[in-house]
Amino acid sequence: MATISSLFLKTPTPTQPFPKTHKPHFSTPLNLPRSSRKLGPGSVTRARIRCGLIEPDGGKLVNLVVEESQKAQITKRALSLAQIKLSKIDIQWVHVLSEGWASPLKGFMRESEFLQTLHFNSTRLENGSVVNMSVPIVLAIDDFQKNQIGGSSRVTLVDDKNNPIAILNDIEIYKHNKEERIARTWGTTVLGLPYADEAIINAGNWLIGGDLEVIEPIKYNDGLDRFRLSPAELRDEFTRRNADAVFAFQLRNPVHNGHALLMTDTRRRLLEMGYKNPVLLLHPLGGYTKADDVPLHWRIMLLGGPGLNRTGPAVLT
Amino acid sequence: MATISSLFLKTPTPTQPFPKTHKPHFSTPLNLPRSSRKLGPGSVTRARIRCGLIEPDGGKLVNLVVEESQKAQITKRALSLAQIKLSKIDIQWVHVLSEGWASPLKGFMRESEFLQTLHFNSTRLENGSVVNMSVPIVLAIDDFQKNQIGGSSRVTLVDDKNNPIAILNDIEIYKHNKEERIARTWGTTVLGLPYADEAIINAGNWLIGGDLEVIEPIKYNDGLDRFRLSPAELRDEFTRRNADAVFAFQLRNPVHNGHALLMTDTRRRLLEMGYKNPVLLLHPLGGYTKADDVPLHWRIMLLGGPGLNRTGPAVLT
Repeated sequence: MATISSLFLKTPTPTQPFPKTHKPHFSTPLNLPRSSRKLGPGSVTRARIRCGLIEPDGGKLVNLVVEESQKAQITKRALSLAQIKLSKIDIQWVHVLSEGWASPLKGFMRESEFLQTLHFNSTRLENGSVVNMSVPIVLAIDDFQKNQIGGSSRVTLVDDKNNPIAILNDIEIYKHNKEERIARTWGTTVLGLPYADEAIINAGNWLIGGDLEVIEPIKYNDGLDRFRLSPAELRDEFTRRNADAVFAFQLRNPVHNGHALLMTDTRRRLLEMGYKNPVLLLHPLGGYTKADDVPLHWRIMLLGGPGLNRTGPAVLT
Repeated sequence: MATISSLFLKTPTPTQPFPKTHKPHFSTPLNLPRSSRKLGPGSVTRARIRCGLIEPDGGKLVNLVVEESQKAQITKRALSLAQIKLSKIDIQWVHVLSEGWASPLKGFMRESEFLQTLHFNSTRLENGSVVNMSVPIVLAIDDFQKNQIGGSSRVTLVDDKNNPIAILNDIEIYKHNKEERIARTWGTTVLGLPYADEAIINAGNWLIGGDLEVIEPIKYNDGLDRFRLSPAELRDEFTRRNADAVFAFQLRNPVHNGHALLMTDTRRRLLEMGYKNPVLLLHPLGGYTKADDVPLHWRIMLLGGPGLNRTGPAVLT
């Protein structure tokens, strides 16, 4: 499955109206997921008249990696706390959270955020605005780990070699209602959902939420880290390239001709609409995919060739 | 199960602060379901400083019963259209919709409203504001009925004796994804949910939405119609009684001593907070309840006695 969407950075003066007959196949600014914008009267029109990069959800891009100057102190503290061993998927979520992909979340969800996500597919900020948040980002622990933590207010998250990855602060432990989580996330409780099988059904009966302090940027040391740009790096890149529109293509499979047509056609339409410098963000999904999917390494390498460089596959013009 | 909530009509000058230690057992204005209010910065404070009755969701109380002067014409039109026979539960939903209990809905949900309800437990108005809408209010039809309707833009809804109840206009027919509806509404797909068994699992494979024109106010002729006040009648009654706070007690069971304590205690606290004339809305649930529940007729009659009159059981001071 692949999705395409466009983010418009500056107000264009379209030289030609957008052809209405093509509308169902193309995301205009008005068709962006509505809940990803702040709610309130006038938000629809505001989406068209923004200048510069759109704001991160919640207004500020979250960065949970501690300052270099604090690293020694945090690492020392991490060694003194109860530990929770993270699975590979848990570490990928720490990665997502740490770089602000899930802004405004500052760590694994506490119960209030978890329930808002399940019931409203969104989360409410202190100022009353609402941002899209449709996937629970939670950390499961079992009864034994819960007892070990006892009344502590923070715990250390470690990898499979017991290296400390992060500290989770002001923790809250609450019930992991697996059936409800699956039913409300997927709209079904059928057996065989890959993520449910892998990360929910056999996970612990409790969830632990809190604020993350991540000791070092998450790296996978698989030869692909240089392609994993953070949201902050992507924003810098869009600015450096002076993009007036960014269109994103996110996919789980190798790029095929149909994808290529969608991408070139979208670029053509953006130019027709009056944008001068639309930039494509090509976004192969890493992390957990289906067992029979083409592995990430092959998919990235298939994008290679003479032009392959640090930002080559991630941001193409 | 019983629930209690308070709506404050005028700004009080509390003579005594609300005792914090009791908070978990009592709904203060700040604990009203958040999504039932318009979203946006400042909404929390606005809830405290309203004067007069709070606004209906969407700003205007919906009334779908046609004007007396149009009745003959609508009835004549109703007899010329394809018909859908309503179940007892369907007619109860027409009742709910017709009097504005589900404002701003103007009829059975179209797909956009249905999906917003399933995914966001709320619905977005044209001005961008969002109101609470957590239960799908939908009308199911089967393949035969769908074929009968064909390309018509309106249909007539009839009772079990083929008497026309309403016309549904500008209809939209869409798939009734029963499993997803159940999973997202209840957070489980376990068998034996009474409403799912009664109204979903064996219902038709399609849903039909549209705008309702209801020919006459819905009556049940069971001796209890005089207790069924509409939202408009309740609002008039609150105004007539000069209420400065309304606290509602909604229940499926006969009132017992625990309920009575909750109600008298709430009244005492409202007086302590500075309200001068809090009014209780006692709201026994009619319609579909569990098979072994005490029937509605008995529950209403149990509230009777010397003081029983038209508004007696519905609005008590």
